[in-house]
Amino acid sequence: MSVTAAAGFRAAGVTAGLKTSGRPDLALVVNDGPLDAGAAVYTSNRCKAHPVLWSERASADGHLKAVVLNSGGANCFTGPNGFQTTHATAELVGELVGSGAGDVVVCSTGLIGVALPRQKVLDGVRTAFADLSTEGGTAAATAIMTTDTVSKQAIETGVGPQGDSFVVGGMAKGAGMLAPGLATMLVVLTTDAAVEPADLDRALRAATRTTFDRVDSDGCMSTNDTVVLLASGAGGVTPEPAEFDEVVRRVCADLARMLVGDAEGADHDIAIEVVGAAEEAEAVEVARSVARNNLFKAAVFGKDPNWGRVMAAVGTTSAQFDPQALDVSLNGVAVCVGGTPHADPATVDLEPREVRVVIDLHAGSETATVWTNDLTHAYVHENSAYSS
Amino acid sequence: MSVTAAAGFRAAGVTAGLKTSGRPDLALVVNDGPLDAGAAVYTSNRCKAHPVLWSERASADGHLKAVVLNSGGANCFTGPNGFQTTHATAELVGELVGSGAGDVVVCSTGLIGVALPRQKVLDGVRTAFADLSTEGGTAAATAIMTTDTVSKQAIETGVGPQGDSFVVGGMAKGAGMLAPGLATMLVVLTTDAAVEPADLDRALRAATRTTFDRVDSDGCMSTNDTVVLLASGAGGVTPEPAEFDEVVRRVCADLARMLVGDAEGADHDIAIEVVGAAEEAEAVEVARSVARNNLFKAAVFGKDPNWGRVMAAVGTTSAQFDPQALDVSLNGVAVCVGGTPHADPATVDLEPREVRVVIDLHAGSETATVWTNDLTHAYVHENSAYSS
Repeated sequence: MSVTAAAGFRAAGVTAGLKTSGRPDLALVVNDGPLDAGAAVYTSNRCKAHPVLWSERASADGHLKAVVLNSGGANCFTGPNGFQTTHATAELVGELVGSGAGDVVVCSTGLIGVALPRQKVLDGVRTAFADLSTEGGTAAATAIMTTDTVSKQAIETGVGPQGDSFVVGGMAKGAGMLAPGLATMLVVLTTDAAVEPADLDRALRAATRTTFDRVDSDGCMSTNDTVVLLASGAGGVTPEPAEFDEVVRRVCADLARMLVGDAEGADHDIAIEVVGAAEEAEAVEVARSVARNNLFKAAVFGKDPNWGRVMAAVGTTSAQFDPQALDVSLNGVAVCVGGTPHADPATVDLEPREVRVVIDLHAGSETATVWTNDLTHAYVHENSAYSS
Repeated sequence: MSVTAAAGFRAAGVTAGLKTSGRPDLALVVNDGPLDAGAAVYTSNRCKAHPVLWSERASADGHLKAVVLNSGGANCFTGPNGFQTTHATAELVGELVGSGAGDVVVCSTGLIGVALPRQKVLDGVRTAFADLSTEGGTAAATAIMTTDTVSKQAIETGVGPQGDSFVVGGMAKGAGMLAPGLATMLVVLTTDAAVEPADLDRALRAATRTTFDRVDSDGCMSTNDTVVLLASGAGGVTPEPAEFDEVVRRVCADLARMLVGDAEGADHDIAIEVVGAAEEAEAVEVARSVARNNLFKAAVFGKDPNWGRVMAAVGTTSAQFDPQALDVSLNGVAVCVGGTPHADPATVDLEPREVRVVIDLHAGSETATVWTNDLTHAYVHENSAYSS
């Protein structure tokens, strides 16, 4: 269901022939209104792919009619011809759905530096348009998968001022190159609530800041990350801003957790929770530093409760703390208290997939959690044996 | 030879029983003068091990008589008792060599959060003192090895104003946790030149800035890094500052290259050379960003010339550049020119151990090279299967 769970949306996922595997590789999501409100956030990578450069302009006015997404090629560093492919794709979608190209967001994912076969993309768009359906959410979510092993879909429901409900649904892809300032991922969210572009933008930025932005699977920021939120207003409910924000946040949190759970080659999902920070930004800095420490990530893979590697990572940050005041616990075992060894690390159970590291800086009351994965043989294998 | 190549130095390497393997684990280097000039630089990690906290104070006055080093334990986050072990070690060395404890640098390497057996260390110091010899350089270099597969030693010779030569020799250990602001490494350099502390300090800081500080094997900064330079003056030559600086730089460069060549589990040594930068600091930022990109490092392991991963890493920096002006070459093949695919990546030969990535930012004339390694199965294995 996902992107078609909310009234006013149709979607499709088809095989355009972009992937050598022959799997589905092109998705289309169309907003049938009555509203055409939209908001989007993009990678903060300065080397942005052509579809991102296009979509930043398309979404700037808060009006979006459709999103077209392809796997099988990132269309990044492909020269002027690559940008023309993105432009032609948006033009065709705009023509088919009865809007301008400027109301169409284009998303691509796959290998950088390889041109997309334009005609196949355009033919795929026509096929997808013919296939559009209010039941097409799962097909669309499947068509955007790359190294994902499962499609990611989420639905959450909120309540409007009169007690009527509204829906926010979403789909996501992303399994490697997952890092800060958005992970390598494409996410489309839809709602039947009647929400103005400015409110969509606020809700989306607030939600991504504490969900997708705090997934840091492998520290590698993508050139193509896009999260787009479309509102059709077809449900007729105008929610309170706080309620709407919270439902959007929940869908983003659901999808972000799914990204971590399906990260390339991972054996463990690791929550790095920093408490007692002087500033929230410092809590994020510390958590991210640990999340990016290859030695710690390899230790978790080996089920080695090597908390010294946590400390060494914390020490590289500029956050406020006294090394001799630091506490660290691993899965509930207080292995270090006040900078001194405490409970026996051998009692830490690292068998479960989910690992929780809690670091108390004793410098304030702010907190943040960053999610990452362990560093495994499978990660190295997947990212060395195949171009992606 | 290494630390005993220069006249005026004796060294020893012994087995104190700190390593469960029974291999040598304690080294002592003594300056017999006539000078006792010394300078040192330490990890910029804020979580510093006890021996670093001690040695920072000991070396502050520019006078050093001895360096005692142990593998088999980092003595970091070991509580007040750990600091007392460092202190007692320095006291004993000072007593034996006829100086104060304040003229003794202490270095430790190994697992964080585990106490060193103090009596074994002190007994080892006595054994090492009895073993001191002008031929002890190799024994000392061997005793500081941890996951190193070979000992690292280097000797360079310079020429004084009257044509007489002077010697700078050195030893290093370090194979994992190699990152910026010094790598996990212990380095002792000695010279028979007659050089004042202030000149030693200048030469050492200048040399480490462009050598050890530009080794970034796995992005993980250690809590114990120490580089110390001792001058005995026993050769009687007072070199010109520029000549001395250059010889010290060469020894540091030799040792830094050896660290990269013996990094844990590495299959490739990768030089990331950034040219055309507006500022040297920006060139370093860009090179380091690529050096830390796990996806690129895994690709090199797989001999996959995946330059898109270089671009994605470059895009995360704040350096001045236009993405559409970037050139990238891999082992001499210009795979990307002006942000557009150029030569066929399939022609890049990634079989040799040494890989050279050149990134031209076309934003100025500054340049910097950072050395790193690939991300391999052996790295994951070594850092997950064993605590270190």
